[in-house]
Amino acid sequence: MFVRKTRLLTPGPTPLYPPALHAMMAADIHHRTQDFVGLYKKTVRDLKEVMGTSYDVVPLVASGTGAMEASVSNLFRRGDRVIVLSAGKFGERWVQIAEAFGLQPIVLKAPYGEVVSPAQVEAALGEPGVRGVFLQASETSTGAQHDVEAIGKLVSRTEAILVVDAITGLGTMPLDIHGWGLDVVIGGSQKAFMIPPGLAFLSISPKAWKHAESCDLPHFYFDLKKEAKNALEGQSSWTPSTALLLSLSAALDYIKSLGMANLIRNAQLLARATREAVTVLGLKLFAASSPCSAVTAVCAPEGMDSGVIVKEFRERFGAIIANGQGSMKGKIFRIAHLGYFDFADLFAVIAELELILAGRGLPVEFGAGVAAVQKVYAEAAMPREAVGA
Amino acid sequence: MFVRKTRLLTPGPTPLYPPALHAMMAADIHHRTQDFVGLYKKTVRDLKEVMGTSYDVVPLVASGTGAMEASVSNLFRRGDRVIVLSAGKFGERWVQIAEAFGLQPIVLKAPYGEVVSPAQVEAALGEPGVRGVFLQASETSTGAQHDVEAIGKLVSRTEAILVVDAITGLGTMPLDIHGWGLDVVIGGSQKAFMIPPGLAFLSISPKAWKHAESCDLPHFYFDLKKEAKNALEGQSSWTPSTALLLSLSAALDYIKSLGMANLIRNAQLLARATREAVTVLGLKLFAASSPCSAVTAVCAPEGMDSGVIVKEFRERFGAIIANGQGSMKGKIFRIAHLGYFDFADLFAVIAELELILAGRGLPVEFGAGVAAVQKVYAEAAMPREAVGA
Repeated sequence: MFVRKTRLLTPGPTPLYPPALHAMMAADIHHRTQDFVGLYKKTVRDLKEVMGTSYDVVPLVASGTGAMEASVSNLFRRGDRVIVLSAGKFGERWVQIAEAFGLQPIVLKAPYGEVVSPAQVEAALGEPGVRGVFLQASETSTGAQHDVEAIGKLVSRTEAILVVDAITGLGTMPLDIHGWGLDVVIGGSQKAFMIPPGLAFLSISPKAWKHAESCDLPHFYFDLKKEAKNALEGQSSWTPSTALLLSLSAALDYIKSLGMANLIRNAQLLARATREAVTVLGLKLFAASSPCSAVTAVCAPEGMDSGVIVKEFRERFGAIIANGQGSMKGKIFRIAHLGYFDFADLFAVIAELELILAGRGLPVEFGAGVAAVQKVYAEAAMPREAVGA
Repeated sequence: MFVRKTRLLTPGPTPLYPPALHAMMAADIHHRTQDFVGLYKKTVRDLKEVMGTSYDVVPLVASGTGAMEASVSNLFRRGDRVIVLSAGKFGERWVQIAEAFGLQPIVLKAPYGEVVSPAQVEAALGEPGVRGVFLQASETSTGAQHDVEAIGKLVSRTEAILVVDAITGLGTMPLDIHGWGLDVVIGGSQKAFMIPPGLAFLSISPKAWKHAESCDLPHFYFDLKKEAKNALEGQSSWTPSTALLLSLSAALDYIKSLGMANLIRNAQLLARATREAVTVLGLKLFAASSPCSAVTAVCAPEGMDSGVIVKEFRERFGAIIANGQGSMKGKIFRIAHLGYFDFADLFAVIAELELILAGRGLPVEFGAGVAAVQKVYAEAAMPREAVGA
């Protein structure tokens, strides 16, 4: 028997920043008071700062899927032709939402683990009357990322607006909202923002607001125009999630003090270290050609169900890591890097992975994967250490 | 200078039950684990128990307005004729939602402070093709309550379904879902359920599910059928609000131990005591003929803006009470009773009200209002005490 701490290490919900968790204890505030107005204005201002945008940013009481729906139901018209980049479970969700609201999606499908290329998007933009392009910045289900910059620059030359599900992209990859022409960028609380789920938010460009003017799709609870107008006054249209706003405000203080660029670099380094470690251990990456930094999807060893690895992580080490979703279940396991993850988390995860693989009879040299992570850390932290490594 | 505690005493958000608040600290759980399945199943089971129903109960990550929208977008068809009882700001919201989704509401309007009678509903049900009736059990903006029992029994004889916004009705008035024919009953976390806002839920009758079959309105995020099916497996369709579910579970433990009937009686006694106290102090009730027990709306004294009273409560005593909404702002103030309110709260509120009124030059005998509250308490708690009162 060992002491065994439970650690949430999934790509959402992610590990919680303790002061942000504790901030929820002050939730006995009323949302039609000056105290709340101050909190709301500050939180929206800080979100804009870390997202790097002067566009409107609107929080919603919803999970990320609610914000995805809001971007469809508030900005399009029945029958609109739109391009959807579908490279995983969340790309498929864009198709479902578009169809639920009567849009006509042109679906550019990539096999799981791969992504849709800018060239494919460019070709599809040649179709007449395309009014929108939907994609995932990083596709959490496969661990792949789209070339948002190239696609953004292509779409910005057209009448279409680009809607980016950046729920796991924000805080794990650069997203230059203004420079790349990202009209709508969607984020969620339980990802790199380090707090529990239940709050989503969107940035909305002037070009997207122009689209909103001709919108004829029914919507009421998710009313982006109304929310944006109220947000200027420090108010939400409906009763807000006060506990999560308090939490988000505290997390944003931390993210600002760290610097959003450093938060992104942290995820990128952890992702690179993970890729090198699992490769050293003889495992294959699921999204080898365009890996994202939010999460690394690793193929289970030949003949082994990835659920076995997920289960051993949980039962032997208290580490909650993610299996694959849908048809990827049993084939991959996913190691997350987004938000409040540090190298100590990764040293432990890789050491545990080595023990699990060795216990299943795979030829593993204890410490080999960990050494790969240490090397990435040493090079990034203080180049001199790397010499001795 | 005095010590001055801040107390949230509004009709939502309401005072928080401390163990339910603290339960949010365990929010580092993943929603696709057996731990979560157990939590979700227990929470839904407990909600059904305190609501007194065997119908499906579905939680949503949304404020109450989201659940109101879900009942429209999931159960009706474009062009459906529906009856809306509009007796305040929340009745007006039903009309807005119905219109946003292309229904044809027949609006039965009562002046603020009054309610729509069962006879009016009966007459309107004579119109051909009515498929639904929407109302507030208690209309929080005015402090009035509808005769849900009589209206439920009328509607249950027809093809229409009855959709009850019981967001402040649950836990403050009896609502016999099965006996009265309440097809949809909507609740919210931040009301008598004693936890922060951000979570709503609905019970759905077989008759309402039958309506859902022919629904042609676009919806995706709020998909009641999908949520109900998943809830049976202890799962939510989208990422759930884990912190608020943990909190709700703890609050439901308390509500079950107290007994839902006692929680309702508590609110009813506080409401009656408040009505008697303010009457003794020479103030008029805003909803005198059909007062609810969630909140008591009191008219400001002749010539005084109710905002003055609200402000003095806040600045002098740290008590956050509610002003009127919309055109009622400045005319009424509202004293809440729903959920985690006790007599000590009310003794203080009435004593403070006496001080505020006296300070503004009104003829008030200190203690007269408090005595009215004590009398109600004494009679209810131990009839013998009342003799001495």
